[in-house]
Amino acid sequence: MTKPRPYNFSAGPAAIPLEVLEQAAAEMTDWHGSGMGVMEMSHRGKEFISIYEQAEADVRELLAVPSHFKILFMQGGGIGENAIVPLNLSRGETADIVVTGSWSEKSYKEAARYCQIHLAASGVESQFTTVPAPANWQISKDARYVHVCTNETIHGVEFHALPDLKALGCDAPLVIDYSSHVLSRSVDWSKVGLAFGGAQKNIGPAGLTLVIVREDLLGHAMSVCPSAFNYTTVAEFGSMYNTPPTYGIYIAGLTFQWLKRQKEGGLQGVAAMEQRNIAKAKLLYDFLDSSSFYNNPVDKNYRSRMNVPFFLADASRNDAFLAASKAAGLLQLKGHKSIGGMRASIYNAMPLAGVQALVDFLRQFEKTRA
Amino acid sequence: MTKPRPYNFSAGPAAIPLEVLEQAAAEMTDWHGSGMGVMEMSHRGKEFISIYEQAEADVRELLAVPSHFKILFMQGGGIGENAIVPLNLSRGETADIVVTGSWSEKSYKEAARYCQIHLAASGVESQFTTVPAPANWQISKDARYVHVCTNETIHGVEFHALPDLKALGCDAPLVIDYSSHVLSRSVDWSKVGLAFGGAQKNIGPAGLTLVIVREDLLGHAMSVCPSAFNYTTVAEFGSMYNTPPTYGIYIAGLTFQWLKRQKEGGLQGVAAMEQRNIAKAKLLYDFLDSSSFYNNPVDKNYRSRMNVPFFLADASRNDAFLAASKAAGLLQLKGHKSIGGMRASIYNAMPLAGVQALVDFLRQFEKTRA
Repeated sequence: MTKPRPYNFSAGPAAIPLEVLEQAAAEMTDWHGSGMGVMEMSHRGKEFISIYEQAEADVRELLAVPSHFKILFMQGGGIGENAIVPLNLSRGETADIVVTGSWSEKSYKEAARYCQIHLAASGVESQFTTVPAPANWQISKDARYVHVCTNETIHGVEFHALPDLKALGCDAPLVIDYSSHVLSRSVDWSKVGLAFGGAQKNIGPAGLTLVIVREDLLGHAMSVCPSAFNYTTVAEFGSMYNTPPTYGIYIAGLTFQWLKRQKEGGLQGVAAMEQRNIAKAKLLYDFLDSSSFYNNPVDKNYRSRMNVPFFLADASRNDAFLAASKAAGLLQLKGHKSIGGMRASIYNAMPLAGVQALVDFLRQFEKTRA
Repeated sequence: MTKPRPYNFSAGPAAIPLEVLEQAAAEMTDWHGSGMGVMEMSHRGKEFISIYEQAEADVRELLAVPSHFKILFMQGGGIGENAIVPLNLSRGETADIVVTGSWSEKSYKEAARYCQIHLAASGVESQFTTVPAPANWQISKDARYVHVCTNETIHGVEFHALPDLKALGCDAPLVIDYSSHVLSRSVDWSKVGLAFGGAQKNIGPAGLTLVIVREDLLGHAMSVCPSAFNYTTVAEFGSMYNTPPTYGIYIAGLTFQWLKRQKEGGLQGVAAMEQRNIAKAKLLYDFLDSSSFYNNPVDKNYRSRMNVPFFLADASRNDAFLAASKAAGLLQLKGHKSIGGMRASIYNAMPLAGVQALVDFLRQFEKTRA
């Protein structure tokens, strides 16, 4: 008898839907009778081009990306983009950043290599347990863009509505780093100039970066921007100026197809997934709030649906907790070293049953140890 | 009855050893009983760290990389490195490049964003069918490095000995772009400062770049170098400053293990592979030279063992040739659009039997059409 597959709560690289992995395994040595595995295909051949075009069309459909946005499949991840965004958008002038946790803090530091960086707001005083209200942001008059990390993977803080810069009297485009909640919810593109994210949470393997950029923002890269990371060049060549991470795009494509098949309460695709993610997060936060054995410190208005950090009131039980949870088939629950404690990342690939199993375990562990 | 697997002559992404693909498929949903596939593992977990460390140790052993060189697993490919190399080594001053084909020409153009670029020599007059003799290179006195592409994938030109810059009176480090022949032969590290290559020919999937750099060259990146592409930062963090392309590293590791198992004439690993590659190239070039129906224009002293461009004397037969070769189970033989004709890329994963099948087909096609 085979053991049931464990639930994997890794913050990223993270769980991938089992159906996607099984299809990838089945097609590994021969994709659709081509006699080649996907890894072995020329990126310019008709087989891979068809995989690429389907993936692009599917993500455009899933996220309802308007036609005046380009979809780019790049390399370098979120940390690469921290440089690539200012190289492409800042023109060496001024950019504004709202710091709400570790990731936007990294973005802030990196962008300073390329332009004047203005801190529009920071959640540091709350120890990044909440987001400063947009009405209080101090945005530069001459900002070339305003950068926000819409889900902070480490601190578990999420924007549940995108800031409306126009309503704040700001005409600059909004740049969102949506790495750790992309495709978990819909995006209001009317408020966005550019969105970027590493694939390794909700899309596919690490090494692929999904950039969605409004066309009017192209054409202003700094001269020191590497061609391979110049959005205009990448867009012009359909993400094939250099060899793209073909296998990552293929896995992303299988994930997009999986996502399109998901249904929940009469909804489908991302809308269905959003409902499921709301239910998963509610189940976990409600339990944490009901217990004094565990706690989550984040402002209820900004709690992430994807990354749930939590702490045992008695931190000396952490090692026992991790050993017992692993034995119970609940993997990778250790929190990020910078803040300690635990973290359950419950991305799209985590079913409600996995969160239920975690809550059952939390309750049981509390009962036997309290 | 299943058809035999076709032989795949793609220039890259290229054929991967069947054993590697089969092992990857078998481990796709559960790596070594961990309950996770490799794509789903945190790059900081002990499972992936063990995969990473084994891959690094294996490539160090296979290529006999001395301990004063760092091995970096990066993103961005060869075209990314065209910027990343000058960002890290040029200090904004002068770099020399020897242009021997399309790839070094791209490197030349891109590096000019960051420093003065001096053309030390060019094979353009020969239409890139040979390499200018090192004794005639005009190297700048103040070059921070000298860049050479040691195997030109499109033109099929390969350095069979690395230039000895010291013997030419030059103290600058030699930078080699070895993308398309890495691990096909040994490397004389005493002549090299830095070597870089995209993985998608002899190592694994596209999206992974293998950089090997002498330690004394670290520490001089330009301020506009993105942190994710700063060799010093990447080295300091063991290629985990940003999330590395974990699945690509895993496939590379399986390929390294496969390579270590290869034997030929009492030799093993890269030495065995080099013997086999010599035999494969000889078989194909000898046939091409014996025929007036086909030809390869490259100087015999610089013919690539990896990429064999060839032309039908009557180009009007090209389409018929490609259709017939595909029907015979010989895939992706079309030449690069910039020079036309055909190209057989016969990387490590191509067995001698595949080259024999190609020669048999070439002979047959000539016989029925001549």
